[in-house]
Amino acid sequence: MPAPTQSILASVLDHVDTNLVASRENLFTLLRIPSVSAQPAHAADCARAAAWWNDQLAALGFAAAVRPTAGHPVVVGHYPGPADYKGPHILFYGHYDVQPVDPVSLWHSPPFEPRVVDGPRGKRYTARGAVDDKGQTLMFLEALRAWSTAGGGIPARITVLIEGEEEVGSANLEPFLRANKDDLAADVALISDTGMWDVDTPAITTRLRGMTYAEVTLKAASRDLHSGLYGGSALNPINALTRILGELQDANGRIQLPGFYDKVSPVTNAQRTQWDALGFDEPAFLGRIGLSTPAGEHGYAALERLWARPTADLNGIWGGYTGAGSKTVIASEASAKISFRLVPNQDPDEVLEQFKRFINDRLPPGATASFADFARAPGIEVNVDSPHVRAAQAALAEEYGKPAVLMGSGGSIPVVTALRSILGVDSLLIGFGLDDDQVHSPNEKFEEACFHHGIRSHTRLLAKFAGG
Amino acid sequence: MPAPTQSILASVLDHVDTNLVASRENLFTLLRIPSVSAQPAHAADCARAAAWWNDQLAALGFAAAVRPTAGHPVVVGHYPGPADYKGPHILFYGHYDVQPVDPVSLWHSPPFEPRVVDGPRGKRYTARGAVDDKGQTLMFLEALRAWSTAGGGIPARITVLIEGEEEVGSANLEPFLRANKDDLAADVALISDTGMWDVDTPAITTRLRGMTYAEVTLKAASRDLHSGLYGGSALNPINALTRILGELQDANGRIQLPGFYDKVSPVTNAQRTQWDALGFDEPAFLGRIGLSTPAGEHGYAALERLWARPTADLNGIWGGYTGAGSKTVIASEASAKISFRLVPNQDPDEVLEQFKRFINDRLPPGATASFADFARAPGIEVNVDSPHVRAAQAALAEEYGKPAVLMGSGGSIPVVTALRSILGVDSLLIGFGLDDDQVHSPNEKFEEACFHHGIRSHTRLLAKFAGG
Repeated sequence: MPAPTQSILASVLDHVDTNLVASRENLFTLLRIPSVSAQPAHAADCARAAAWWNDQLAALGFAAAVRPTAGHPVVVGHYPGPADYKGPHILFYGHYDVQPVDPVSLWHSPPFEPRVVDGPRGKRYTARGAVDDKGQTLMFLEALRAWSTAGGGIPARITVLIEGEEEVGSANLEPFLRANKDDLAADVALISDTGMWDVDTPAITTRLRGMTYAEVTLKAASRDLHSGLYGGSALNPINALTRILGELQDANGRIQLPGFYDKVSPVTNAQRTQWDALGFDEPAFLGRIGLSTPAGEHGYAALERLWARPTADLNGIWGGYTGAGSKTVIASEASAKISFRLVPNQDPDEVLEQFKRFINDRLPPGATASFADFARAPGIEVNVDSPHVRAAQAALAEEYGKPAVLMGSGGSIPVVTALRSILGVDSLLIGFGLDDDQVHSPNEKFEEACFHHGIRSHTRLLAKFAGG
Repeated sequence: MPAPTQSILASVLDHVDTNLVASRENLFTLLRIPSVSAQPAHAADCARAAAWWNDQLAALGFAAAVRPTAGHPVVVGHYPGPADYKGPHILFYGHYDVQPVDPVSLWHSPPFEPRVVDGPRGKRYTARGAVDDKGQTLMFLEALRAWSTAGGGIPARITVLIEGEEEVGSANLEPFLRANKDDLAADVALISDTGMWDVDTPAITTRLRGMTYAEVTLKAASRDLHSGLYGGSALNPINALTRILGELQDANGRIQLPGFYDKVSPVTNAQRTQWDALGFDEPAFLGRIGLSTPAGEHGYAALERLWARPTADLNGIWGGYTGAGSKTVIASEASAKISFRLVPNQDPDEVLEQFKRFINDRLPPGATASFADFARAPGIEVNVDSPHVRAAQAALAEEYGKPAVLMGSGGSIPVVTALRSILGVDSLLIGFGLDDDQVHSPNEKFEEACFHHGIRSHTRLLAKFAGG
């Protein structure tokens, strides 16, 4: 099979357009399965969602199977592609599980009865999972179906990997990847679980921050003390903890852990220029959450602070009496949780050690510190000069009539790290969500325009990979 | 009736000695009434304890009455004293209510079945209330009884005021004092609810620290935020709160509120010399609670730090995610509770304002602070040159063969403030408790030696007041 011509692509895109209602109904069928991975009562629903995916892939000619794990199953399907295919072997990753729906009373319609409703940007679909990640994964499935139906066959070599535990931490995915390394070999991973710049502007996410998440507990006296009888003699661990943590950042927002910035690279001028050109409206971004003045490191533009600079945020703090009214107690201990968002090249293990040293160097006599750590993941930066990124840029530019924004994300996507470290593949993150999609919240929605352009974008991308 | 002679006093003291078992049985009768003021199920027991006191006072010739309040009743009794009495009108204050007994499983015998058990210092009495405050108040009652039986009558003018809500904050006492100002008029208040220096060394507590207790809440964003998506742009109120509170004290433990020390007077050299001579063993004091190095203001001796220097202790702190594991949240708010222990002349209202200003001066843009306050009481310093203190010093020195220690207390006793501000009387705090009496804890006890010497001390003090 030769590389698809422009006229074949045009036919497939036409099919996508005329078939949009069927594609939506297909999505709605999946949305009706309440595959909430966190809730044991929905284990059978998770199995049903996996079986649904298996059937869909099999119907398209994939060699598909539902594969058990210690938790919810994984679906894997292989499609060999044309015999003369010269493009990359694509590993498409997604997840069929969804977040719980609580508080259900805030939903305008039942979360597992998908609806088409009118919104300011046209039709939208509302349901739990509408965008995260059923809607996003279905766009790729519908692009495959369009090629299969109207394009003479799927034009690329593809492995599909759909897991069922993304919303609960993917604990069983890494062992699965390790155990099935050869079976999952590919040249590039394609993930559709991120966002666009705005409804008219496509985006490729090329940077993700990593994380070191730690907890510290300062202990002092062997029991709680009366603050009148001991105050002035006994060490107060809450005073000590605030004193130490209060030194985490200087007046310019610079993190004070010795060595913390040693491996932080500045972004390139080209990258900075591109981000500046986006005209990100930080006051509006903050205004939506009731803030007006940016926090964080002084001397950096907003997107650089959010995407390319590390942070140190206290996520929780507790100690002593926290009920109503007063209790005159000197607590015996105090604790805090902290997450450092990291940029590429920072070593999460080193940062954990730097944090422990920072605390231990400041311990007053009589205090001891103990630590726990809950997550360590490096930051990710995709090489934007790769042929895969260029193919994606071309496909998105043709679909939207403007270049895709190369975005960063302040958050972490652990599967990207796992795919790189275990399978050795880089990820191409092309998503179609919008900031107001209410992901993880009541009334999750997906814009039909995003769904439609997303199917078309994946359709075009498959043609690009096939050399078209 | 003339002032009692030494031989009459000797007879009364003999009676105290020979009558000790009867005095103990009298105490045990009161200890068997479970007058737990905090627990509504014990309201009738509180009423029984009040009635018991009323009957005891009436039997001694007091004009006594159980007086209702909005809570548990107060007992008031008046004894006119000898017609030619020239000493001070004494207002004896105590309380009949006790703390709850939980956890009852830790008691070696039922808390309301008093026992005589052998201890390292001889016999001791164990029961809830053994010392606080039933044992301490009964010593005065037994001294009155001894004078009545063996001394030809009670030699002084006395009003007894026994309340039933000391363990729950005495909310109804102040209104009662205000409403009965004339009825409760006196020259000096006598309170037995404090401790000795040690089992052989009597003490008069002449200093009490005051308190300003406040709560601060810092608010930032209008909702909790994802720390990946907002970290580096959105203000983190826990970071801000630790940064501000971390500046409360400098490296020498000096409190940094502007003006905080303006009204703090140094203790006199004489006072310092007396305290130094006590040989207070701070390492042992701290060793019992698992600490070794003193905290607090540098440059002051231990007792001065505990009794005569103000403190700033964070009593509680909370914000963000405090459960198990990790949650990558930037909280919308963070809170802390703080108590300032104050010394005489510091104004609790001013300190509250200083604290608010300290916080507000350091608020980062976008943060707002709100405050609550739960207690404001000035520190108390008794004029030790008064004839009442001299009378007590003489009585205690004669009983114990050594001078009484003039102690401070790091804690507050709110009734002392109320008696001064409402009735205009200073308090004489003479107590016979020991540090290991397990006050408020399981297995509360009172040493028989303390009980016995306490009755004798009160017996002697009444003679002193009567000019003997």
